[in-house]
Amino acid sequence: PISKLPDVGTSIFTVMSALANEHRAINLSQGFPDFNCPEPLVNLVTRYMQEGFNQYAPMAGMPQLRHKISLKTEKLYGYRPDEETEITVTSGATEALNAAITAVVKPGDEVVLLEPCYDSYAPVIRLCGGSPIYVPLVLPDFSVDWDQVKKRISSRTRMIIINTPHNPTGAVMGKQDMDRLANLLSGSDILVLSDEVYEHMVFDGKQHYSVLQHPQLRERSFVVSSFGKTYHTTGWKVGYTIAPPALTKELRRVHQFITFCTPTPFQLAIADFMDEAAHYLELPSFYQAKRDFFVEQLKQTRFEVVPSAGTYFQLAKYSDITVAYDLDFAKQLTIETGVAAIPVSAFYHNKTDNKYLRFCFAKSEETLKAAAEKLAKV
Amino acid sequence: PISKLPDVGTSIFTVMSALANEHRAINLSQGFPDFNCPEPLVNLVTRYMQEGFNQYAPMAGMPQLRHKISLKTEKLYGYRPDEETEITVTSGATEALNAAITAVVKPGDEVVLLEPCYDSYAPVIRLCGGSPIYVPLVLPDFSVDWDQVKKRISSRTRMIIINTPHNPTGAVMGKQDMDRLANLLSGSDILVLSDEVYEHMVFDGKQHYSVLQHPQLRERSFVVSSFGKTYHTTGWKVGYTIAPPALTKELRRVHQFITFCTPTPFQLAIADFMDEAAHYLELPSFYQAKRDFFVEQLKQTRFEVVPSAGTYFQLAKYSDITVAYDLDFAKQLTIETGVAAIPVSAFYHNKTDNKYLRFCFAKSEETLKAAAEKLAKV
Ligand SMILES: CSCCC(=O)C(=O)O
Ligand SMILES: CSCCC(=O)C(=O)O
Repeated sequence: PISKLPDVGTSIFTVMSALANEHRAINLSQGFPDFNCPEPLVNLVTRYMQEGFNQYAPMAGMPQLRHKISLKTEKLYGYRPDEETEITVTSGATEALNAAITAVVKPGDEVVLLEPCYDSYAPVIRLCGGSPIYVPLVLPDFSVDWDQVKKRISSRTRMIIINTPHNPTGAVMGKQDMDRLANLLSGSDILVLSDEVYEHMVFDGKQHYSVLQHPQLRERSFVVSSFGKTYHTTGWKVGYTIAPPALTKELRRVHQFITFCTPTPFQLAIADFMDEAAHYLELPSFYQAKRDFFVEQLKQTRFEVVPSAGTYFQLAKYSDITVAYDLDFAKQLTIETGVAAIPVSAFYHNKTDNKYLRFCFAKSEETLKAAAEKLAKV
Repeated sequence: PISKLPDVGTSIFTVMSALANEHRAINLSQGFPDFNCPEPLVNLVTRYMQEGFNQYAPMAGMPQLRHKISLKTEKLYGYRPDEETEITVTSGATEALNAAITAVVKPGDEVVLLEPCYDSYAPVIRLCGGSPIYVPLVLPDFSVDWDQVKKRISSRTRMIIINTPHNPTGAVMGKQDMDRLANLLSGSDILVLSDEVYEHMVFDGKQHYSVLQHPQLRERSFVVSSFGKTYHTTGWKVGYTIAPPALTKELRRVHQFITFCTPTPFQLAIADFMDEAAHYLELPSFYQAKRDFFVEQLKQTRFEVVPSAGTYFQLAKYSDITVAYDLDFAKQLTIETGVAAIPVSAFYHNKTDNKYLRFCFAKSEETLKAAAEKLAKV
């Protein structure tokens, strides 16, 4: 059959993790921790399964979980989303992104993406008959050039997708960025999809700035978050969206035909465990310590590093290492050096190669140390 | 925002389950058991979570689970699908259906649906820019009129969706149906999406006939199944597809951007538990006993019943009860009589009302008895 996405291959995360497994390399490519989730969380899931909570959850999510999300959002961002009409639990952030885009992007619509960006945005836009409009982030710190964004906005622009803290670069947006964005969009009906899945990983005393804190943006935004990142359970696939009632209504119209609902025992367990606010309040220092350890270890290598401001990813530049294309280098590193990373070109539609690799530092110090020692041999 | 599915409301399952909960009615509407899944299955999930299997599964599914699916398929249907290239684990059958349709249906394509049919097919087709072409099943036994199907096939037909055992009617297709279908499609490149989620619930000594048993159909088919139905775990959202490599390749291209993957501990636990073939081999008698019990109980009511040939649903006709529209009747029954059922009009695009309600009998005898006693008062 003639493909609807002929130029879209297997996602880079699948490619690199498979290669890492095949060659028993240390896998710092796909983003997931190599340590387990909190034991009480596992015990809660077990209890709910034993008590018989193994059937469909309501389509919008378990009320208990939506309630806790609402409370947490108010506590952190000063805005309390309505549980009935503004919060929807999804099968991971990937489904949330898919549902938000599918709900509103029509054939002929344009969606502005800031590159490099997560690899699911553009294919989903294209499946809806829309066109991604790419605006590059500005090196060396991958900041947004809002004047460039403004130039690319047209009467066909339906949405702009932002991502903070940013995967793969670790950059974070501040209130000034949000003010600029709000200004740009003022008077238009352009929507915002704000991918904030790393909201609990911002370092060096900074705070995550959510579009939920910005009333003019909030009223036109889908915000996406992920329990997989926050609770070390990427394999449970529980995420959520917050959006105003009119947008949530459209999102649920499609969510009910994408997955319908999300595993019940996980939802109930996470709802209970969210009472332990200490867990996510301590995440910044937990991950900052890992970042600092890894950055320190990388000093013995030829990779150049500017410490990541957020996420559990660290970019590393290798401009003085003479190699071909970064994807080839990443493969070579996996096979010959025994460390897998993600080539940042995979996050550009035209595979721009700025000679960066992305390393995931959501790993034990032992793992990070062993990886750096191998990288020192390059 | 202007909706992409302006005429699509909240799914009937959500509407009726919410109404049932609100009025504390016995809920025989949405299809799910009121008994728990096997305890060993819960224990396996717990063990895998404790052992740390809480991170992303591979995009196509855990190899262990795909292996067991392959073995089971060979045992039951005499065809062994390739684990690498033909089997994909999805976040429930709903995601499998969405991925199969989204992978191949393009703007302008037509997809033939046999009505009444499951409520997710048409909206997903429409989101792809395709058009559902409706062919009614023929009362009283809801059989397929293949001559009618033939008349509705055109040069724009991309796919036909079949469903056996059939939700909501309980009808099953036999080899003769499949031969007719194969004949109709021969020489065309029309695809088949075969929704077989109730494959283990066929009664009265009959066997499920899968498109996988029919080489001419198999080579053009996506087959969808669901562990939720088989293992009493509708709330875990684990399903799968089997399709030839070229179709599986297209399906995975979109699956990776819909949910990416499906919960790891569930996949591993189900893979182990599939060794207990007795569980699914005994499902027909387990559910047939429930069907027989429920049908017997309904004799005290004014509902007319032809025993269901498959699924865990029983249609009941109420032609001699003077009521308005079946949806109103279902709501009235929930609120006033205390029993929730699904109005079959919800499965027709034009809401055809043949005066049938659908009852789910995946319930304890106690529940079924209590429901029938209430229904006797109508
Ligand atoms: C869904 S697999 C990709 C995980 C991830 O978010 C990343 O590695 O960037
Ligand atoms: C996904 S909720 C609907 C469950 C079901 O398959 C049915 O009741 O028909």
